[in-house]
Amino acid sequence: MYELSVPVLIRGLGVLSHYMVRAAAFAETRGIDPAELADARLAADMLPLTGQIQRASDTAKNGVARLTGTQAPSFADTETTLAELKERLDKTIAYLETLTPEQFAGADERSIALPFRNVSAAMPGRAYLTQFMLPNFFFHVATAHGILRQRGLDIGKTDYLGGF
Amino acid sequence: MYELSVPVLIRGLGVLSHYMVRAAAFAETRGIDPAELADARLAADMLPLTGQIQRASDTAKNGVARLTGTQAPSFADTETTLAELKERLDKTIAYLETLTPEQFAGADERSIALPFRNVSAAMPGRAYLTQFMLPNFFFHVATAHGILRQRGLDIGKTDYLGGF
Repeated sequence: MYELSVPVLIRGLGVLSHYMVRAAAFAETRGIDPAELADARLAADMLPLTGQIQRASDTAKNGVARLTGTQAPSFADTETTLAELKERLDKTIAYLETLTPEQFAGADERSIALPFRNVSAAMPGRAYLTQFMLPNFFFHVATAHGILRQRGLDIGKTDYLGGF
Repeated sequence: MYELSVPVLIRGLGVLSHYMVRAAAFAETRGIDPAELADARLAADMLPLTGQIQRASDTAKNGVARLTGTQAPSFADTETTLAELKERLDKTIAYLETLTPEQFAGADERSIALPFRNVSAAMPGRAYLTQFMLPNFFFHVATAHGILRQRGLDIGKTDYLGGF
């Protein structure tokens, strides 16, 4: 369960962290206000880049906290700049790096309550990870990618996958 | 390895199949040419909805074929309509449904060659699944979601996650 979550999430968060650096350089080169990139979105009623990064961070840190029965650090969702978003991602990675495989003992069978409003449901950790947490995490990584790609950032699938 | 791949992929492909039905109804209600939806994309040099669906199908079927050392059905990438895309998704699901947990015995250790042009690399099945195949699969599901969402289709995160 450790191997299925922590390195996978660290890789995805690292990709987003790298995107923040690329986006800042891109904004400077093109004379775009970086705050405009941070606030860009695919649809008026979808989260902007800021929100995609915050939710990727939350899905990762709160997900592993649920799986291990520990407490994740709380971040206030006050980031507005690309540099602050990078810091949020890097802090999330730093937290994930403190977790050990031993803390995931029994996580596959642990009953996890789904974090939905108005829905009371729980599932075993293994199903939670593969059917909820990872799809949700990659939704936010891919949507952040799509937002930046649509604004002209020169990133591709190999950037998204994180290099092999 | 079966549990980490087949049900997860079937769920994601089922979500996309459902999106095709929703998109067709949406196009009819709004008087939009459904072919326009099928050809919609987030950036001029990104794949359109058609390509996102085809790559989600390929990532799923070719990925499990690599993991099990079997042969996936080959589809010709000739789909142009929402109905044909739904058929492609449903055929992919039908193939995945033929696979059994027994066929995944040893898949976690099986050496998998990465399907990159100009890159010669291989990794154990478990890393291939979590670091390459699932991130890649969800990229295409989430990007299809983003394309349809941007065009006005009323879908949200609970649709994407597939219902619990």
